[in-house]
Amino acid sequence: MSALYADRGLFVCLEGGEGSGKSTQARRLVDRLAAAGRDDVVLTFEPGDTPVGADLRRIVLSPETGDLDPRTEALLYAADKAEHVARVVRPALERGAVVVCDRYVDSTLAYQGAGRVLDVADVERVARWATGDLRPHLTVVLDLDPGAGLGRFEGRDRIEGESAEFHHRVRAAFPAMAAADPDHYLVLDARAPVEEIADAVWARVAPLLD
Amino acid sequence: MSALYADRGLFVCLEGGEGSGKSTQARRLVDRLAAAGRDDVVLTFEPGDTPVGADLRRIVLSPETGDLDPRTEALLYAADKAEHVARVVRPALERGAVVVCDRYVDSTLAYQGAGRVLDVADVERVARWATGDLRPHLTVVLDLDPGAGLGRFEGRDRIEGESAEFHHRVRAAFPAMAAADPDHYLVLDARAPVEEIADAVWARVAPLLD
Repeated sequence: MSALYADRGLFVCLEGGEGSGKSTQARRLVDRLAAAGRDDVVLTFEPGDTPVGADLRRIVLSPETGDLDPRTEALLYAADKAEHVARVVRPALERGAVVVCDRYVDSTLAYQGAGRVLDVADVERVARWATGDLRPHLTVVLDLDPGAGLGRFEGRDRIEGESAEFHHRVRAAFPAMAAADPDHYLVLDARAPVEEIADAVWARVAPLLD
Repeated sequence: MSALYADRGLFVCLEGGEGSGKSTQARRLVDRLAAAGRDDVVLTFEPGDTPVGADLRRIVLSPETGDLDPRTEALLYAADKAEHVARVVRPALERGAVVVCDRYVDSTLAYQGAGRVLDVADVERVARWATGDLRPHLTVVLDLDPGAGLGRFEGRDRIEGESAEFHHRVRAAFPAMAAADPDHYLVLDARAPVEEIADAVWARVAPLLD
């Protein structure tokens, strides 16, 4: 399977650890796209933005689920992706929309690969098959020290509640992916002011709209 | 990944279409194993014989789920298998148990591969990764014309409710797998009397117990 970049629409993903501001920046980007006159903009997320995905999100994130075999977890995330790409992302791109997605394949490679210490090549093969290897035109990585991003322990979900070592492996994975493919990545320091980050994202996205 | 046959315990799977008598024969086999003095025998099934598997079974079989992308479905079955092998099958084999399983990887290859017309090699790669390529020492295929096995349409689950063509593709897939690896398969006509089938299964299983 080879990397596929949609020839219609624009696919932008936001990646990073907990508390790095992905959701805030996704909304800012959607606002700027609207202000720039783009009338077909889809704001979406993984896992969970399809009916079956919502069930899978509950399973993978609820602390009540308890331990899952690492392959089980990776396959549940892959199933969510398959449904999300087939039902939401690809149809939107095919009609020419801008799709802004909070987390995508890179999160699986970071969390289920680097985090869980499965063989990343195996996790990637499964996730690429799930998505038909559809790739974002641009992935924005919001880099943040895990200690600064995670909230109080009591409020954490099943993934957030993992060890500090887990979250440090996850953090390191994103810039490594960006370094291997700089044309499709933008890495930003998540501690910068929100508007400054939004400006940097827009500076990179705007030229892609033409 | 290469095929792995457990060096402790015995792993026997039953495969076939709806109504072919797999569950009945699984119970008969368990009874004979008990009568032969085997005191650690695990009767299990896919999908659904783990806590998370029960949720996945509901998703894939409930008619309320509606259409799923074929890759989503294959990945949900694979997730069920990963959890089932990690939590139930492998631990039982490691302590030397006989594991009798109603459906396993072959069902995925038949239903999500041949049935859904995904590339079977892709479905197999995912399912083999999910299970660490753990293979049954023996798979019993109960071959039956789908017209004879499916119940009334109103009572069918999401998979049973598929087209006749789907079920004919599924039926054909099992004997084809058996023909490629006769040392690990036994194909029987599911229309034979229950006791006659049970005798034939036992004749093949008993020598494997030593």
